[in-house]
Order: sequence, then structure tokens, then C-alpha cells
Amino acid sequence: MPQGQPLNVPDDGLTTRQRRNRPLLMVHTGDGKGKSTAAFGLALRGWNQGWRIGVFQFVKSAKWRIGEQTVLERLGRLHEETGEGGPVQWHKMGSGWSWTRKHGEAGDHAAAAAEGWREVTRRLAAQTHDLLILDEFTYPMAWGWVDVDEVVETLTNRPGHQHVVITGRRADPRLLAAADLVTEMGNVKHPMDTGSKGQKGIEW
Amino acid sequence: MPQGQPLNVPDDGLTTRQRRNRPLLMVHTGDGKGKSTAAFGLALRGWNQGWRIGVFQFVKSAKWRIGEQTVLERLGRLHEETGEGGPVQWHKMGSGWSWTRKHGEAGDHAAAAAEGWREVTRRLAAQTHDLLILDEFTYPMAWGWVDVDEVVETLTNRPGHQHVVITGRRADPRLLAAADLVTEMGNVKHPMDTGSKGQKGIEW
Repeated sequence: MPQGQPLNVPDDGLTTRQRRNRPLLMVHTGDGKGKSTAAFGLALRGWNQGWRIGVFQFVKSAKWRIGEQTVLERLGRLHEETGEGGPVQWHKMGSGWSWTRKHGEAGDHAAAAAEGWREVTRRLAAQTHDLLILDEFTYPMAWGWVDVDEVVETLTNRPGHQHVVITGRRADPRLLAAADLVTEMGNVKHPMDTGSKGQKGIEW
Repeated sequence: MPQGQPLNVPDDGLTTRQRRNRPLLMVHTGDGKGKSTAAFGLALRGWNQGWRIGVFQFVKSAKWRIGEQTVLERLGRLHEETGEGGPVQWHKMGSGWSWTRKHGEAGDHAAAAAEGWREVTRRLAAQTHDLLILDEFTYPMAWGWVDVDEVVETLTNRPGHQHVVITGRRADPRLLAAADLVTEMGNVKHPMDTGSKGQKGIEW
């Protein structure tokens, strides 16, 4: 067997090159640390390839402006200034997505999540980004705020060459079935188990 | 119970603040993707906090200059130019560590790995970095190229406030026992299972 050949070659009518470069739907799930961190690490790689990065954070958080946002947006400005890397957009649900004027009902997370997904759908159709990170999107899926079948169908039939990463616990089995790559981050040991709280630089 | 309080508070004589800010020994292990990616994502966060980042890659690779190196070194230069973030050093074993003049025996990975660990030991003693990433260091440990007990003792007794992340499969149980945080990245589904090879932006 030639070195570096995969063991199983599927009968899918694709050349190795087509298969190699196919756009991936990736899921980072499980109870352990590293789901979002690894997704933002992928954004680093993608930026370096000149990809147009789009991050969509679907859950409110007290520590809302995390270090990755600062750094990735800085890299986006570097792209504008010098042409290095690719452009970066970072959108977060917070008290309303940046593209809407509605910052109304603070409590209506369900509507905000659905609006976020609609915008992602529009961007997938327009092929706005080369890498989309839907951070913590498993929760709106698990809570019924978006229709899982519609999400899976939209992702499966997205046009062009768009990589998508979805992070969060409790990923729906239909999403896992549709994904090309699933990593489960398992919590083997965590400082909070022994009474530590999160700390800057590590958790945000 | 006040919000955000951990369930178990250990009887270790530390205040919450001391416990919160204690330096962490973190291990990313398992057969799945994301071990190194999540470590480099942590480096993003650390850079944003102004930390002095040191990356030490212990295994040769055909795809040796990965995107993360380019981007993190670029952030290091940004720090020099503008004072933003922190300094970044990226060292790789490759055909000899950058701090040695010996680029000799291409085949002597064991000696190179041992030399890499000695340098890390010196830097831990000197408190050169705030975050050290020992990428794929589990392999020299598993292969007996470094003494596991000595590694664990050195890490456990490191002075000051230095975070350490070790990545790689087959982490030694003694390392896991000493670690504060262990995440196991499990491979649930991977494109190579269905005949795809790695692709740029995703794997490197």
C-alpha cells in the first residue's frame, strides 16, 4: 500500500482531489474543555490561508468578549491594513445581533437564536465566508429554537466550498450523522472539580 | 449556594483567589482531532492577556510549518511593533532546535527530544514564559526518550506562575495524575475514515 493512502476508498465517484478538498461539516461536542478553543484555533489556520472567517456565537455569556474575539478581530484589521490572511467577522447574539436594529426583549433568546440561524442561512446561500463557526449552536438545536431537520438539510446542501464548525454539548444525532468530522471532548479532569473557578487566559 | 460557587471546596489551605489563579498543568490527549488546535487556541487567549508564549514542538512532521506558527509568530511581531498582546517564541525539533548549533544526526530524535526537554527545564527554572505548550510531548515520554518521573516532578515543582499544556496521544498515567486539567479528544468520526486525506486550513 502506498504511504499515506487511506485504508478505505469510498465508491462515491469523486477523485482523490475532489474528496480531499471537499468542504467539511465539523462538530466539536462533549462535556470537556476545548470545543470552542479548537474551533477558534481552526480559524487561525483558515485566516492564514486567506479564508473569509465568520464567527457566530449563539449563547449569551457573562464573559462575552473573549480573548479570541479580540485577537481574531485584530487579525481581521491586519488583513485590511496589509492584505495578510483573510477578513474576519465576529457576530454574537448578546443583546441582539449586530446586523439587526432590534435589541429589544432581553429575555427572548429563542427569537434571537432563530434570527441568527436565518442570517447564517442567507450567508451560506451567498457564500459569504469560507469558514463559519457556529459557536454553541447545539443548544438552540437542543432547545427547539431552530428546526433540526431544516438545519441539517441547509448545511448538507450548502453550495460551493464552505467549511462549517458547530460547537457545544448534546449535539443532535441527526447533526452527527450529517457531519464529516466529529470530535468529542471528554472531561477527564477539571480544576473546577477540585474547587477552582475559571481564570482569565484559560477560560476566556 | 451563591451563584458560580464550585460544588466542592478543597481543604488545601488556599484562598479562592489563590486557587483561582494557580498555574495549571493541562493535558490534551485522546485519538481525536483538536489536541494541538485547542492548545494553540489557548495561546491566542494568553497572547491577548499579554502572556509570554513559548511553543515547543517535539515531533518532526512533513507539514512542519503549520498555519498556527505563522499566525502566532505574526502576533509576536505585532507585540514588538505595537506593544499589543505578549511575545511569542515558537521552537520546533525539526532538524535541530533553534537554540542549538547541532543540526547533526537527522535520525537521532531521542537525543533531540531529550535536549528539548532540558531546555524546557531551564526555562521553567528561569520562568521565561507564562504559557508553555509542549506539543506532542507525550510521545517522547511514551518512548522513553525522557524520564517520566523526572518530567512529572519538574512540572509539579515548577516555580512561579507558569501554565503548561502538553498534547498528544497515550498520555502517561503519572502525567494525568499530576495534571490539573485533562481533556480527552475522542475521534467519533473523521473524514479519513471515508477515504479523504488531510487538507490545508483544516489539518495544517
